[in-house]
Amino acid sequence: MKNVAVRNIERADSQVISGLANHGVATVHEAQGRFGLLKPYLRPIYPGARIAGSAITVLTHPGDNWMLHVAIELCQPGDVLVVALSADNTDGMFGDLLATSAQTRGVQGLVIDAGCRDIADLKEMGFPVWAKAISAKGTVKETTGSVNVPVVCAGCLVNPGDVVVADDDGICVVPRLSADEALEKSETRTSKEAATRARLAAGELGLDVYGMREKLAQAGLEYQD
Amino acid sequence: MKNVAVRNIERADSQVISGLANHGVATVHEAQGRFGLLKPYLRPIYPGARIAGSAITVLTHPGDNWMLHVAIELCQPGDVLVVALSADNTDGMFGDLLATSAQTRGVQGLVIDAGCRDIADLKEMGFPVWAKAISAKGTVKETTGSVNVPVVCAGCLVNPGDVVVADDDGICVVPRLSADEALEKSETRTSKEAATRARLAAGELGLDVYGMREKLAQAGLEYQD
Amino acid sequence: MKNVAVRNIERADSQVISGLANHGVATVHEAQGRFGLLKPYLRPIYPGARIAGSAITVLTHPGDNWMLHVAIELCQPGDVLVVALSADNTDGMFGDLLATSAQTRGVQGLVIDAGCRDIADLKEMGFPVWAKAISAKGTVKETTGSVNVPVVCAGCLVNPGDVVVADDDGICVVPRLSADEALEKSETRTSKEAATRARLAAGELGLDVYGMREKLAQAGLEYQD
Amino acid sequence: MKNVAVRNIERADSQVISGLANHGVATVHEAQGRFGLLKPYLRPIYPGARIAGSAITVLTHPGDNWMLHVAIELCQPGDVLVVALSADNTDGMFGDLLATSAQTRGVQGLVIDAGCRDIADLKEMGFPVWAKAISAKGTVKETTGSVNVPVVCAGCLVNPGDVVVADDDGICVVPRLSADEALEKSETRTSKEAATRARLAAGELGLDVYGMREKLAQAGLEYQD
Amino acid sequence: MKNVAVRNIERADSQVISGLANHGVATVHEAQGRFGLLKPYLRPIYPGARIAGSAITVLTHPGDNWMLHVAIELCQPGDVLVVALSADNTDGMFGDLLATSAQTRGVQGLVIDAGCRDIADLKEMGFPVWAKAISAKGTVKETTGSVNVPVVCAGCLVNPGDVVVADDDGICVVPRLSADEALEKSETRTSKEAATRARLAAGELGLDVYGMREKLAQAGLEYQD
Amino acid sequence: MKNVAVRNIERADSQVISGLANHGVATVHEAQGRFGLLKPYLRPIYPGARIAGSAITVLTHPGDNWMLHVAIELCQPGDVLVVALSADNTDGMFGDLLATSAQTRGVQGLVIDAGCRDIADLKEMGFPVWAKAISAKGTVKETTGSVNVPVVCAGCLVNPGDVVVADDDGICVVPRLSADEALEKSETRTSKEAATRARLAAGELGLDVYGMREKLAQAGLEYQD
Repeated sequence: MKNVAVRNIERADSQVISGLANHGVATVHEAQGRFGLLKPYLRPIYPGARIAGSAITVLTHPGDNWMLHVAIELCQPGDVLVVALSADNTDGMFGDLLATSAQTRGVQGLVIDAGCRDIADLKEMGFPVWAKAISAKGTVKETTGSVNVPVVCAGCLVNPGDVVVADDDGICVVPRLSADEALEKSETRTSKEAATRARLAAGELGLDVYGMREKLAQAGLEYQD
Repeated sequence: MKNVAVRNIERADSQVISGLANHGVATVHEAQGRFGLLKPYLRPIYPGARIAGSAITVLTHPGDNWMLHVAIELCQPGDVLVVALSADNTDGMFGDLLATSAQTRGVQGLVIDAGCRDIADLKEMGFPVWAKAISAKGTVKETTGSVNVPVVCAGCLVNPGDVVVADDDGICVVPRLSADEALEKSETRTSKEAATRARLAAGELGLDVYGMREKLAQAGLEYQD
Repeated sequence: MKNVAVRNIERADSQVISGLANHGVATVHEAQGRFGLLKPYLRPIYPGARIAGSAITVLTHPGDNWMLHVAIELCQPGDVLVVALSADNTDGMFGDLLATSAQTRGVQGLVIDAGCRDIADLKEMGFPVWAKAISAKGTVKETTGSVNVPVVCAGCLVNPGDVVVADDDGICVVPRLSADEALEKSETRTSKEAATRARLAAGELGLDVYGMREKLAQAGLEYQD
Repeated sequence: MKNVAVRNIERADSQVISGLANHGVATVHEAQGRFGLLKPYLRPIYPGARIAGSAITVLTHPGDNWMLHVAIELCQPGDVLVVALSADNTDGMFGDLLATSAQTRGVQGLVIDAGCRDIADLKEMGFPVWAKAISAKGTVKETTGSVNVPVVCAGCLVNPGDVVVADDDGICVVPRLSADEALEKSETRTSKEAATRARLAAGELGLDVYGMREKLAQAGLEYQD
Repeated sequence: MKNVAVRNIERADSQVISGLANHGVATVHEAQGRFGLLKPYLRPIYPGARIAGSAITVLTHPGDNWMLHVAIELCQPGDVLVVALSADNTDGMFGDLLATSAQTRGVQGLVIDAGCRDIADLKEMGFPVWAKAISAKGTVKETTGSVNVPVVCAGCLVNPGDVVVADDDGICVVPRLSADEALEKSETRTSKEAATRARLAAGELGLDVYGMREKLAQAGLEYQD
Repeated sequence: MKNVAVRNIERADSQVISGLANHGVATVHEAQGRFGLLKPYLRPIYPGARIAGSAITVLTHPGDNWMLHVAIELCQPGDVLVVALSADNTDGMFGDLLATSAQTRGVQGLVIDAGCRDIADLKEMGFPVWAKAISAKGTVKETTGSVNVPVVCAGCLVNPGDVVVADDDGICVVPRLSADEALEKSETRTSKEAATRARLAAGELGLDVYGMREKLAQAGLEYQD
């Protein structure tokens, strides 16, 4: 495989992207038919962030963050870096210097299938990272990888320009071309859930709200006293 | 196995239950002779909660939260939901809608041997959950399980009506019939520890407080300079 | 192996130690040539602590914290307890009583290749712990181990009197005899990083700051539009 | 909890037990309605064994095999030892000496939620073990546990006298009182599977044998060329 | 996502495929530039098999093997089934009945990112499986997935018709369109390795065969006596 | 840390070494007082090997096997290569070419805290390896490490020239200077175990052979009928 860095990628509409951020990962994932979720071993390094942005994808090697520098040049404000690895690794491949550079260019955050370091600094800077591990182990810059090619990150295919939604619940990838549809379905779902929430908060039971009683009987559930 | 939902269960005395909450998991576990601890891979989704309540047990299948709706109807104020799975799973089987419904009925919290989602919402609502994972992966409602049968959750047998104590240190199950005794022994232990703590804080050494020096010599420990 | 407790150990200079604390784990680890890092499965029980101190090493057995009492007597203000285990274990071998005793003697914190409990209390006391797990499972005091012998903790050799630096990024061990050199190199590195950070914050790219463009071309990276 | 060793337990009929062995774990587990399976992290130390026997249950502590000696005295020919631990552990708590003793008394094999050692010897002796790990780490005999009390082993409740079926696929526990029924259902299932196997071997498709085509269409599966 | 089953896929040349099988996973992976390797947690259920075939891809859900029946109809002799899951799972989703059906149609083997059962039978049948776990836990047939769509299996993107090479070292995926090139490069590599092996077997050192001595000196390695 | 390769190391007496091999890991580990055991996640790539030899230690980096070539030159017949990593890794850092070279020089086997490949070839060659994983992922030769320095391998300190004993039960390291003593104690232990085994095989119970009955009563074990 030739190592390449693709300069120009298509991005989804920025209003669609920020709309998806508002709905959050759990809703978007359900709304788009339950796919696109990265494995839950990726966790935010601090709680409370909720972002969405266009994926700048990076394929790199364990302990080598050279390609991250290449990728940052290709980022636009609002983008999210998505780093995939050629083999399992927990080294701290991203720290406060790279975050400073990324933040200066308007990058919103990082999703990395490896480790992260300088946690306290990143939290103070408000630069959110979803990582597999926290590790002070630094990196070399010796082997090239690729930027803006399709990658598999934490078990999920991510294409450059896909919309990455990330919050405390994890990370969901929305294909660029179906971002509009995902937003629309997320809005529908959020509205519907608001109505359901109101009924549940008022004391109605899920059994009644969702009309489950008959189905449960058919499925053979037996109540005993 | 026939799938059943048992409506009425015996519960421990509510004052005993709240007494156990005050002592916390580490003390109660020691006090009752070191059993009843769930495996430590169950972690609170946010720090600081400390609860105790009667277990409403739920046996369900990976990715299917149908039985949780059945269980909520059978909960009384102060109860704690305990969800066991028929196979290992990290799907986010509980989120803010179920939490709304549970909280409305006075449920204090949830212990689940699977994943949880809508973390930010649950934290804001103040509905504590001890879970194996955080995952946005939603669930279906297709297969029945059982409610209020004995279950094995995170390696520990839990009977409906057992007292579940949970805090930042983990989760401990106290059999309903020995809850009084566990509370009594916890009180004794807490008093004794307070006295010990005062001596240690005053600078006495554990070696002296616990009278260990002679035993150490007998056990063959050799001091060197 | 005879079980021993060594009373007197050499320590590094206290100003060097506090200097290392200021630089933090990631910098010190890089500065001393990338060794001495404990495996990243050891995590702080609460965020925000940053300490450095002389290692009082403890070799003990799963579920047995007897030697911790022996070790505390041998601690001086500023020391850090480092506990290694003879086999993998997650029991909560350290809690608020031991922390009270340790804090009273001026111990700064604990690094343990096992579990910790009484998390809420330790956080309130401000006694930081880096542990493998959080578990309410208590311990016995039945088998002797050793204090102040070389130990392997979380994959890293630690000699008594080595400087242990610990923060949110993990734990790094600096050999006592090279602590001066590590501090000096850390200072150089921190200065250099400050300069780099300023340039990156001003919008310069890492590609230019580090002069990577030519090397990337030589390494065969191909840009595409 | 008082530590007890219960001398006399009820056992299932020996012909029923050997019948269950013939059907194997996968069939028995399905036949009894999909419960009673121990977690798959327990693996046989060598391939090819298939046994069933009455469970002599042992509750013990990490690294302590004292109770195994107590248990062996209580075994009858054909029994299977089932060892549960009070905390996660991989020590080699069973080796060729215990196996010699157990085999002499007619014990068929061991299921242990911890480690095993002397693998080469056990294989040569033909004494099968299902364990969590292989480890040369030996054990002490210092703390009592219990024999023939209900235990949770690898996530599953096992009562003394339950029938334990174990083979290359894992371990399944059949409650003593429903062993007859489980055997009957296993026989039905095996016969039915033999018929299905013949049809599939003759080239019929599962889609047709199980009549799935219509259901797939209803479920919305779309064929494309 | 609409669930689809694609009937006709392109396959690589059968002689190229069998050529790749001869070279084995390690060689093919290196030859094609070190990509396409599935994560090493997938292991063969018995040693000694070495296969290559066109991937029939299956996307399915934890504990549901319905789509495997759909996939088998679409297989041709020599194909290899590749099963990806929508969430982590270790259930035994493939056993001797499915293997009988698959083998009857000429399927060579299975790669599954989940569990497998009936291990003893599969070994006797000579139907090799690379799986994440061995588990007797059976499956339902309730939810549709897809067949012959791109899937991510054990961290690697697999397109239908890609060549899957599998042996004791693991599994490597060769894109269909570059299979010829991969074979050619594998042949070159195998020849070169044979020559190297002969020199090494004759006692020459790798340091000399690969001309490493000067580079090591340049890299600063210092020999000491 | 300067990277060095130390040419000459002290070795234990060859008859002592082969004596230790005869006793095997479990016995030697116990005999030398229960230390020196590598963590049990290192497993043999095929069953049945039992070796002992002088450790040639290698410290290397994830995915880089350059130092193995350096190490092989420094090996003498009967030696065992022990490879430690600077960070967790499962890449297949050792395969049939290195094994050919090592075997030609009389190296008996390899212990590596990383992955291994060409499993089928190594088994056929009779070159045993104890590894953390099996992976076809190859390696680069870009970064120097060290040979014959003290290393931490799988949680255990190994000095060059220490005696490494390895078999199906795992790996135990015997310090060179205490190898004689370890052999002597192993012989005593083996004799004693042979006598115990004979008594147990003749039907005596461990309870009587070890005189446990009184101690059990003192420890409070209560027999029930």
